[in-house]
Amino acid sequence: MTEKMRAEEIQMERLKKQLDFILEVDKVKNIVRQTYLSDGKRKENDAEHSWHLALMAVLLKEYSNEEVKLERVIPMVLIHDLVEIDAGDTYAFDEVGKMTQSSREREAADRIFGMLPDDQGQRFRLLWEEFEAYETPEARFAHMLDNCQPMFLNDATNGRSWEEHHVKKSQIYSRNSKTGEGSEIIWKYMQGIVEKHISLGHIIDDMQE
Amino acid sequence: MTEKMRAEEIQMERLKKQLDFILEVDKVKNIVRQTYLSDGKRKENDAEHSWHLALMAVLLKEYSNEEVKLERVIPMVLIHDLVEIDAGDTYAFDEVGKMTQSSREREAADRIFGMLPDDQGQRFRLLWEEFEAYETPEARFAHMLDNCQPMFLNDATNGRSWEEHHVKKSQIYSRNSKTGEGSEIIWKYMQGIVEKHISLGHIIDDMQE
Repeated sequence: MTEKMRAEEIQMERLKKQLDFILEVDKVKNIVRQTYLSDGKRKENDAEHSWHLALMAVLLKEYSNEEVKLERVIPMVLIHDLVEIDAGDTYAFDEVGKMTQSSREREAADRIFGMLPDDQGQRFRLLWEEFEAYETPEARFAHMLDNCQPMFLNDATNGRSWEEHHVKKSQIYSRNSKTGEGSEIIWKYMQGIVEKHISLGHIIDDMQE
Repeated sequence: MTEKMRAEEIQMERLKKQLDFILEVDKVKNIVRQTYLSDGKRKENDAEHSWHLALMAVLLKEYSNEEVKLERVIPMVLIHDLVEIDAGDTYAFDEVGKMTQSSREREAADRIFGMLPDDQGQRFRLLWEEFEAYETPEARFAHMLDNCQPMFLNDATNGRSWEEHHVKKSQIYSRNSKTGEGSEIIWKYMQGIVEKHISLGHIIDDMQE
């Protein structure tokens, strides 16, 4: 075998791994979240949600408290839910599911990112871990987007998902304890939405003095 | 009104426009394409497709013939189908629909990108026009992704969408006349897929000598 043929073979092996991964992650299009689309007709899935976050990252970057690099935020939000292919979607307020969520998702990350060529698998794994660790400006901004996108959709559907799950204000505030670290301005806007839906009876106010 | 209050009001007006746009584009999640998901259970929608392209842009950048900037490719693929909110999806091989496609999409772009603050609306409009004009390295790479993603899904579903639409090899080659300008390697790989599905009887071979 000539060197050129060997180089081509290596390249094809690499491309094959990448395309296998690209087909594998097609499965997130079937992972249904608890949030309804803005028209209320059905719940959205992880791929749609991730597309929405990436677009929001481009548009709302200016509201990040800290300077963030979109070249890291965007891949982060594009892949942040891929582990749910194996681990499933754990609803934000499912306290039982959340107990095993971390170990289930870690195993999923091993398998799914492990399908890629080492350099790309490693990069995605680190980006996913960075997101999970919630300790960098990019992770804080990405989490802010991840938390506010369903809130905007819930607002558009008259609080339907909150009502269905009997969500309490304290649960929203607990989940969003660091959202203001991503963007003070958007967190302030989100708080306004929460108050509106408390007064409409869609969110239970359990934080009254 | 103090200057600070006025500045806050301007910022809130800007944020309001951005969030209105973010909710408006939620509608692409309901624009169904002709491609089936890899599991064949249903057809994919524009949001899922755009998510897939953005992820592929990150992974397959190395195969672009020319150097491309992901900071332009990614927003381009994230928004390239938004005009279909008003103009609808025109199937790649719908020759009648394609006659009015351009004017329908231009009007849609006016309305949809016009919802954003001027600077962002202008930026998205230019990115969309750049994609449509097909004349820059980023546009060539984005079109290559846009054309190969449904081909990979069709391959995974045993050529189902090709069979349903009685697609001919000449149609695929006409649509992909510039795909090799985006990436020679991937276009070569795609040609292999086409030949495979010709031999399986899923694509009509009308280009025999």
